[in-house]
Amino acid sequence: MKLALIGVGLIGGSAALAWRHTGSVAEVIGFDCDSIALARARERGVIDRVASSAAEAVRGSDLVLVAVPVGAMRTIFAAIAGAVPAHAVITDVGSTKRSVIDAARLELNANSSFSFRRFVPGHPIAGRERPGVEYAEATLFNGKLFVSTPVGETSLEALTQIEALWRAAGARVTRMDADEHDRIFAAVSHLPHLLAFALVARIASEPDGEHKLGFAGAGFRDFTRIAAASPAMWRDISIANRAALGEELRGYRALLDEMQRAVDAGDAAAIERIFDLASRTRRSHARTFDAE
Amino acid sequence: MKLALIGVGLIGGSAALAWRHTGSVAEVIGFDCDSIALARARERGVIDRVASSAAEAVRGSDLVLVAVPVGAMRTIFAAIAGAVPAHAVITDVGSTKRSVIDAARLELNANSSFSFRRFVPGHPIAGRERPGVEYAEATLFNGKLFVSTPVGETSLEALTQIEALWRAAGARVTRMDADEHDRIFAAVSHLPHLLAFALVARIASEPDGEHKLGFAGAGFRDFTRIAAASPAMWRDISIANRAALGEELRGYRALLDEMQRAVDAGDAAAIERIFDLASRTRRSHARTFDAE
Repeated sequence: MKLALIGVGLIGGSAALAWRHTGSVAEVIGFDCDSIALARARERGVIDRVASSAAEAVRGSDLVLVAVPVGAMRTIFAAIAGAVPAHAVITDVGSTKRSVIDAARLELNANSSFSFRRFVPGHPIAGRERPGVEYAEATLFNGKLFVSTPVGETSLEALTQIEALWRAAGARVTRMDADEHDRIFAAVSHLPHLLAFALVARIASEPDGEHKLGFAGAGFRDFTRIAAASPAMWRDISIANRAALGEELRGYRALLDEMQRAVDAGDAAAIERIFDLASRTRRSHARTFDAE
Repeated sequence: MKLALIGVGLIGGSAALAWRHTGSVAEVIGFDCDSIALARARERGVIDRVASSAAEAVRGSDLVLVAVPVGAMRTIFAAIAGAVPAHAVITDVGSTKRSVIDAARLELNANSSFSFRRFVPGHPIAGRERPGVEYAEATLFNGKLFVSTPVGETSLEALTQIEALWRAAGARVTRMDADEHDRIFAAVSHLPHLLAFALVARIASEPDGEHKLGFAGAGFRDFTRIAAASPAMWRDISIANRAALGEELRGYRALLDEMQRAVDAGDAAAIERIFDLASRTRRSHARTFDAE
């Protein structure tokens, strides 16, 4: 099977490596707007050949993996719509699903030679502190979750094929509705990123920010680790999922209003109620999280 | 030297182990309101003898380490004020300093047999995910920071002695004003804890909270690690440092108001500005943090 990899970053690169190792794909043609990343992917053996455009990459492929920031999905879909073989399956790894599905419906579905039935929206839940194909590894998805969010038109055959590929890469597979996906990940991923970015940005923008950061301990290190992530990627996610993220942020801000009142008033009981619920919950999930 | 250890938790227990290993103290007498913790400390060789009260523990000691939650400091100071030998030095490990100094001034200074000059307020910046003497280790402070926050009355002799003890335990030592300490740690420690507790509590209080938590990845795990901390300890810290913490929270909420506006409006440039500043800052400090 011939894979066209559009976007040779950490996730796309790791998927290509995993599928090579398991023999799921025999040849990988890569395209990325970043020619340095493309060269690195070639050096690391992530891809066999470099294409000069997304359309060129998908020509003659059996499988297309679109692994670009969610804000670039529509442009890529538009670029490949006329070039994807009719039998090929297209899938993606976007962290938000509704926006990707809407973009695919507009651009891929409008194309007569490719059937929208062969588009499988998906999201592997894996990452690293640092982005980039230099950190890509075949084992990245081992024991991690892959969420597929098929739409009404998605063919069962294409869906089954993509889910089998992620299982081969070591992932556990689950299916859900795109809107449910976006709501869940707004809560457990997108909001935490926004909060960590905001905390570090706030300290950094103060005159004595550098001095303060000199006293940060292990708690701060862990809490802010996700703030080292790619600003462009998370800007795209925040915009693409802004409805669900906006709701989560609103709810969280309402809780912080309560916390402000409790702190200002020295209301120890109110503070402890929140802290205690959080601590019990986090401890009861420690095993699940730390197994990852 | 005979050490009275009041509060046999992670920090106090680790300090006693470190000072035993380096030969800084020859005998340790322990007291804690939690008799199970006391028995564990005895079993683990953290303390040699169990005292039946804080006053009994400090009688005949040369050094008193008060390592109880900051909310319990004043009660302990009141309990030991009449029993501490005149030559002994008292120090503490509280995460907030102004409140501890105020409590010590009220309770220790009022006592005629002990000189307030021999009280050295301090804060070792070290911790673990889980509290408790069972996780105590002699190496906990290795390469970590110890902050002393002497007041005008503190004798240089007592200050030098305490700083030497923490250096012997492997810590780097720095001095600062108690109010500066409280302001810095409100920003880099107390606020992050409050935010992590609030995030987990919010998800846990929703009807589908457990379902959502099932999809949490590595980012959520790291971001919320500090939410497994002791609710009572962090309630105490939040109350003891509520002036500085309240200010930090107010500033952070103002930034979240901006973020809400940007998310709702789909203002990608405003979002990226914040994310980019945070990402650059966090990356530039990665080495410092990860060395810890």
